[in-house]
Amino acid sequence: MSAFEDARDELKKLPGIGFRSAERIALHLLVEHPEALAALLTTLADASQKISRCEICGNIAERGSLCTVCGNDRRDAARICVVEHVPDLMAIERAGTFGGTYHVLHGRLSPIRGITPQDLNFESLRKRVAGGNVEEIILALSNDIEGEATCHYIRETLLGSVANLKISRIGFGLPSGAILNFADPATLKSALESRREF
Amino acid sequence: MSAFEDARDELKKLPGIGFRSAERIALHLLVEHPEALAALLTTLADASQKISRCEICGNIAERGSLCTVCGNDRRDAARICVVEHVPDLMAIERAGTFGGTYHVLHGRLSPIRGITPQDLNFESLRKRVAGGNVEEIILALSNDIEGEATCHYIRETLLGSVANLKISRIGFGLPSGAILNFADPATLKSALESRREF
Repeated sequence: MSAFEDARDELKKLPGIGFRSAERIALHLLVEHPEALAALLTTLADASQKISRCEICGNIAERGSLCTVCGNDRRDAARICVVEHVPDLMAIERAGTFGGTYHVLHGRLSPIRGITPQDLNFESLRKRVAGGNVEEIILALSNDIEGEATCHYIRETLLGSVANLKISRIGFGLPSGAILNFADPATLKSALESRREF
Repeated sequence: MSAFEDARDELKKLPGIGFRSAERIALHLLVEHPEALAALLTTLADASQKISRCEICGNIAERGSLCTVCGNDRRDAARICVVEHVPDLMAIERAGTFGGTYHVLHGRLSPIRGITPQDLNFESLRKRVAGGNVEEIILALSNDIEGEATCHYIRETLLGSVANLKISRIGFGLPSGAILNFADPATLKSALESRREF
């Protein structure tokens, strides 16, 4: 039944989905509740027509438009908060303390998993900074080895390119080994306020 | 961004997927790796063309064919093992000790969740038994209140309909409160061997 195995294997590629979950979802959609599949396919195809990456920062945006942050004149474009993923951005927005803009890398450097700067949304960050109107970069990456390595890479690359660029990294408040988008708003707020030179 | 919320809410309906997982998958497919979406949609649509329920037992089958168990002449059609879901059937097949056929209910009775016999693949089981060639029903349902209630319902409904029908329920070996398809093959084997009158 290779069509079933194909479906299961394709579902297994989704983030957070293992073998058993993929099998369960495939059976749900193909055997137990086939009527649910059409709605899912239509909704996803429809959403992919309407949704895209913001061309400035990589955040989720309506296709052809900037995201709600970059498209907001009252946000301070001179300050860029760099995050790994869109949910991290959403978590910081929920904290409600940051008035600048974002840059979403869509991942972080990982020599072990073969993820290089070319695999990330990094070149557009370099261009934003080279444009000359950026005063501060706040690195809000995960507090682990890969996050640390990514912070170092960004500092090394950006510091030389522009004079007087301030680079900080959120620090106090985020527990070691924690995943950023599970932190509560108060923790994220204190982490943003206690950012330090990096 | 209602298209995104629609996609997230549709994904949240899948078994085992909560709010955060649905959000993460929607962002993965729509923003971070949009190239992965087309493959997923194509594979699922393709699989739904090729895969369906076995018209005899409700197991996964190629569309227009019986499942691999019902289509196998060497399986003993006089013995029917009733399970809740297809993965339960697969788990018992992995144990390799059962030579009969199956019947997949696609759920179990639950007054609290409003699931009645009409919502389950039950009528076709009644017809198989009424057909007269079934000697034994083995109830391999979960060892909890809803599983117990479903066993009682099946016994009450089937026992009166045919003379000399033997109904048993797997018992020893399955820990209380456990989910069937996570049990190891040895446990399932002993549970099948130690089935008792019900």
